[in-house]
Amino acid sequence: MTDTRFDVLAIGNAIVDVIARVDDAFLEREGYEKGSMRLIDPARAEELYSRMGPGREISGGSAANTLAGVAALGHRCAFIGQVADDQLGAVFQHDIRALGVAFDVPPRAEEPPTGRCLVLVAPDGERTMNTSLGAAQYLPESAAEPELVASARFLYIEGYMWDPPEPRRAILRGIGAARAAGRTVALALSAIFLMEMYRDHFLKLLDDGLVDILFCNEGETAAMMQNMDLDAATDALAARVPLLVVTHGEKGAIAVSGGRRYSVPAERVDRVVDTTGAGDLFAAGFLAGQVEGRGIEDSLRMGAIAAAEVISHYGARPDADLKALIAEKLG
Amino acid sequence: MTDTRFDVLAIGNAIVDVIARVDDAFLEREGYEKGSMRLIDPARAEELYSRMGPGREISGGSAANTLAGVAALGHRCAFIGQVADDQLGAVFQHDIRALGVAFDVPPRAEEPPTGRCLVLVAPDGERTMNTSLGAAQYLPESAAEPELVASARFLYIEGYMWDPPEPRRAILRGIGAARAAGRTVALALSAIFLMEMYRDHFLKLLDDGLVDILFCNEGETAAMMQNMDLDAATDALAARVPLLVVTHGEKGAIAVSGGRRYSVPAERVDRVVDTTGAGDLFAAGFLAGQVEGRGIEDSLRMGAIAAAEVISHYGARPDADLKALIAEKLG
Repeated sequence: MTDTRFDVLAIGNAIVDVIARVDDAFLEREGYEKGSMRLIDPARAEELYSRMGPGREISGGSAANTLAGVAALGHRCAFIGQVADDQLGAVFQHDIRALGVAFDVPPRAEEPPTGRCLVLVAPDGERTMNTSLGAAQYLPESAAEPELVASARFLYIEGYMWDPPEPRRAILRGIGAARAAGRTVALALSAIFLMEMYRDHFLKLLDDGLVDILFCNEGETAAMMQNMDLDAATDALAARVPLLVVTHGEKGAIAVSGGRRYSVPAERVDRVVDTTGAGDLFAAGFLAGQVEGRGIEDSLRMGAIAAAEVISHYGARPDADLKALIAEKLG
Repeated sequence: MTDTRFDVLAIGNAIVDVIARVDDAFLEREGYEKGSMRLIDPARAEELYSRMGPGREISGGSAANTLAGVAALGHRCAFIGQVADDQLGAVFQHDIRALGVAFDVPPRAEEPPTGRCLVLVAPDGERTMNTSLGAAQYLPESAAEPELVASARFLYIEGYMWDPPEPRRAILRGIGAARAAGRTVALALSAIFLMEMYRDHFLKLLDDGLVDILFCNEGETAAMMQNMDLDAATDALAARVPLLVVTHGEKGAIAVSGGRRYSVPAERVDRVVDTTGAGDLFAAGFLAGQVEGRGIEDSLRMGAIAAAEVISHYGARPDADLKALIAEKLG
């Protein structure tokens, strides 16, 4: 292993979650599909916010949540993302740094404000996310400094960042730097709606050999391969990437690598409070396992344990001592 | 009963809590007395914030928390307090309005920002509060509109507001309007440090017959009467106000009125997560009982049930359905 400053560097949206409990009737009235994530503009965000109940603000952002998990597991992390120079930006910056994650992208002085995600949590814990990206969509290409990227063993990319043009350039620059330095590149597909728009782009990234580890869930796998037969879709997707990790919600998760399939059941949870961050924390546990040089099976277990912790409370970042939890359950 | 728009109107600090878990060693290192509340200036707040772990931002403020409880119990509430025209001010405003509480004091355009309370929660759930009042300390006297005050059956005042000069004038104007309209005035003593500075002021308010219901805890009772014999201090204080309510933490609470003493044990809690808001929610339950025309004993029970709910989770406002909880336990 070469000498590196960081174990995992992530490029992702810098977002503060505004979490409110809602009943199923509210979601139905608003026409939301439970479990979905959608992008909304600032006006729509204001309108929805005015109808939502009281919130609690907790730092979020998909890849940033993953880093929170990797850092909680004792590994050295850095984050690239964009906040605005405002109070919620200061909250995001404080929270990620307080986890020991290096985060040095300067806040952006102009409008729009720091990104927010209005998270509506139903009584069964299922969340519906409404994201107003704000400053996050203006992450400049220059933020993906090749020296910084080369200083981390793993580069982890949030698929959401592929949508806005400037962050996409940052991703491509980051991947280039990671490849040149011989680093491992992991990509999360993030959301089905991205497959509808960018399926070909993502397939090209895979076919060009730019991605080493691909994280997705069942729906994204099916959408990516345009095949509703999940087994067939998984096999087809696995043929295009060295290591594929597919989460299956309460049914657990699988990984496919070198023609072999590995699987892990979901970890038991007393009460599902808020499913936000389940996928992010699964990726965190898995990545931490890889950083530690563990096998795929153990890495899957770590993912399942981290995901179970985060859905047992509000907020998409770990609350309990993840390291102790994994030591207790896995050793 | 005269025709009123509101059941309870409160004057209090508009504060957003920033809640972080800490270990006992952190509190010791910082020289904090567990369970205390202190005022800190913005520079000290920045410094402490930079050393704190990741936070969750949840609207707070003592009297505002009380209103959150009273509103959750189905009563009509209004709030008078001052936020700044910034993101945390918008959060406070949204959250209290989302509870159905009328809140029409316009945000203040100038510095300082909206008040924040850095709440450090120890493993045993005990909280230490560090408040930077910000805009809250500039609530103008004009905000206590006599017409608004007269439109509520109960005026509830947070003792913390006695410290800064402008809110103090607002309190006096509010009390004057409430008395003139024949409303009931309730005062919470809020914190021991206030007794050290304003003991004589508070005693004068009582002796002038301006307060109908006084809320305090054991420490505040002792400090108010400068008597460490709690029984004697309680009797002496009770002699100066028609209805005295003293919370005793995990030992329950008592009330004294018309020479009679009433008491209630604390409600059982599975696990104390965060004691922030226990006193505020006790007052909420008790006030709601009074609004409903219940007796003192039942009002104490309602206080105990509301306090138990709020200490079982993070944040100083109710999370569960308080109304259903009280109906289940009390009928």
